[in-house]
Amino acid sequence: MKFLKLASLDQVYSEYFHRVKPIDETLEVPTLESLGFVCAEDVLASQNLPGFDKSLVDGYAVRSKDTIGASTNFPVMLRVAFEVKVGEEPKRAINENEAAWVATGAMLPEGANAVVMVEHTQRFDEYVEVMKPVAVGENVLRMDEDVRKNELVLAKGERIKPGHLQLLLQLGVERLKVFRRAKVGVISTGDEIVEPFVEKKSLVQVRDSNGYGLVAWLRSLHFEANRVGLCRDDEDELFRTLRSRFDEYDVLVVSGGSSIGARDFTEAAINRLGKPGVLFHGILIQPGKPTVLAIVNGKPVVGLPGNPVSFTISAKFVLIPILRKLENEKDFLFKPSGMVKLTRNVYSRQGREQFIRVKLLVRHGQVWAEPLESETAQVSNLVKAEGVIRVPPDVEGLYEGELAEFYPLWLGW
Amino acid sequence: MKFLKLASLDQVYSEYFHRVKPIDETLEVPTLESLGFVCAEDVLASQNLPGFDKSLVDGYAVRSKDTIGASTNFPVMLRVAFEVKVGEEPKRAINENEAAWVATGAMLPEGANAVVMVEHTQRFDEYVEVMKPVAVGENVLRMDEDVRKNELVLAKGERIKPGHLQLLLQLGVERLKVFRRAKVGVISTGDEIVEPFVEKKSLVQVRDSNGYGLVAWLRSLHFEANRVGLCRDDEDELFRTLRSRFDEYDVLVVSGGSSIGARDFTEAAINRLGKPGVLFHGILIQPGKPTVLAIVNGKPVVGLPGNPVSFTISAKFVLIPILRKLENEKDFLFKPSGMVKLTRNVYSRQGREQFIRVKLLVRHGQVWAEPLESETAQVSNLVKAEGVIRVPPDVEGLYEGELAEFYPLWLGW
Repeated sequence: MKFLKLASLDQVYSEYFHRVKPIDETLEVPTLESLGFVCAEDVLASQNLPGFDKSLVDGYAVRSKDTIGASTNFPVMLRVAFEVKVGEEPKRAINENEAAWVATGAMLPEGANAVVMVEHTQRFDEYVEVMKPVAVGENVLRMDEDVRKNELVLAKGERIKPGHLQLLLQLGVERLKVFRRAKVGVISTGDEIVEPFVEKKSLVQVRDSNGYGLVAWLRSLHFEANRVGLCRDDEDELFRTLRSRFDEYDVLVVSGGSSIGARDFTEAAINRLGKPGVLFHGILIQPGKPTVLAIVNGKPVVGLPGNPVSFTISAKFVLIPILRKLENEKDFLFKPSGMVKLTRNVYSRQGREQFIRVKLLVRHGQVWAEPLESETAQVSNLVKAEGVIRVPPDVEGLYEGELAEFYPLWLGW
Repeated sequence: MKFLKLASLDQVYSEYFHRVKPIDETLEVPTLESLGFVCAEDVLASQNLPGFDKSLVDGYAVRSKDTIGASTNFPVMLRVAFEVKVGEEPKRAINENEAAWVATGAMLPEGANAVVMVEHTQRFDEYVEVMKPVAVGENVLRMDEDVRKNELVLAKGERIKPGHLQLLLQLGVERLKVFRRAKVGVISTGDEIVEPFVEKKSLVQVRDSNGYGLVAWLRSLHFEANRVGLCRDDEDELFRTLRSRFDEYDVLVVSGGSSIGARDFTEAAINRLGKPGVLFHGILIQPGKPTVLAIVNGKPVVGLPGNPVSFTISAKFVLIPILRKLENEKDFLFKPSGMVKLTRNVYSRQGREQFIRVKLLVRHGQVWAEPLESETAQVSNLVKAEGVIRVPPDVEGLYEGELAEFYPLWLGW
């Protein structure tokens, strides 16, 4: 049952994530307020889109076969029977050798199956000369070409993005069933840690930036998050705090102090909470190694390292994917948002997955990544970084000019 | 004064953006609620960080010169004078041939200038054998190595990210001066457009997805946005709506209908509002060409195309950068988030900047982009796209396997 060992990120993603049970509570929200929630039902289209054969250009709706052989020298002459405005239904069908003027977006009259662009016609009062033949369907968006009735337009487990809204609104979907948001309680620990806005009594005290910073970050990603306590490096105090908050939250996060005993306190306190307790301590990532992963009575409890950079990398690649899985997101792992070329060689220890903070530079249409100084203890270069590149565990490093996977640091999904 | 012509995106970014005057109103917000605002002041560090010489490892703080010549066979013996816990100030300085036990994160005592990792020592009661020499500064983060007092930590014009919060909290910055958010009023137009949740009277009616979708998207990016009206394709009605909302908003957006006269109505209505009026109609981008850009009495008024895909591309690459500039963001244009390899050839019309919707695939550590069907009229593949690749205006297309710039579609900054 227990995996008290250093695990690779892949092992964590399979063995630990396997035990993270998604929330099953759902709620109904107005579609207009559904952005960022994970959809809890398959939404099928209630109608075709556009719902009618629609002209993609300004021109003349015609029967394709009436235009066969048309050319500049031998145009085909058709009678313009009527005009169809956007937002109007055509007055009637068109007959042989008739055409109807249609604007972009207008509905084709019955009988018409193509549109001749206005550029390929010449108008003479109630007649139009067509100088180019059109094939069936040319310049037409068929009634079900965008969306077919009963087609799946939003699947259970997808996080709702602005593009989904556009589609759902076109279909008149007024309310949506979504999974409720994951609730995260963040407990900061460490004898050296003080609240951020108090006068420091000693220069060795450190203001709690990790706990509050994480809460603001998670909220910006649509999760419910609260900073629920600050504990000394004391097993009893941490245990009591965890226990008092346990029922309120879906995940408890212990933001670690940096003292040597901090991890032991954290593990002991978590293990007193319930079974199975700590499953992984230490992940083969750099920075972020001293991450503790537990399951207590079915709920994830996560210990994040105290160092601000390790903290951030571990939150990004371990904690946030846990929250995404909890909220039932199908694809809960981050994908790289592209590749970048390295401005210089980077070295890595084999056997560890390394994440190197970088700044992006765009030069002659190529995206370059400038690795920042790699001292993990520095919070200042966390601010300069736009994201990280990944050095896989099985390589010793990457060369200048080589392509690396890039992950934006702060953005969601 | 007027540029009534088709302009390239670069021209728009220089000639039009030049006339977009940033908002000068500021407000003070608690640092904890500042995420997403643009900072309105240069923030200088009020103290050094970490503020004291800090051990980066568990081990013994020593005077570097006392360890000269130390080796496994000939270790140097030092007296362990005391221990420094994390969050404590050292009891006293260390003297010649003394060491102090320090945990990771603990403060070095005066006299010490390096730390020997515990792995390179052997402890015998109050003595420790050092088996490796350490250089001055080894395993130490100097008191001002992370942040130097009076260093610029957040500049005016930067959008505040979670990383900034971590740094500001460590420095005890409680409140921040920020620029107020840009207010955007969105007016939908089009004879065919109806409110999204009404029963359609005719199958040619189209529910307004662009207006409401844009508002939700802009809000998710921290802007203030409201849908303020729905107008017929009627110059007077649009003019009256624009005029009645003009003072309330920093930018008015006219979400266009698709009828052939819609752009003319929009331009005429905008020009009646004030000077200089419409400056650009039409941008050399595909999709997104029928974009109208005006300045009226110093305020931007933007007409977006009615087609949902054109609408989205134009909002992403024109409207949102305008809002970013209005909010005083220094780098207001989107940068690609990396490069992607194309799974197949894409063709483009020279002279236009083309944005092709793609889905990302990660294969063997490489990020590939699968171009989606390019029918601009389809809202359904807007949902499938994770972003767009850019085909520069001076090329005819890109080949399978070639690298292209990738821009995520929905994410901010």
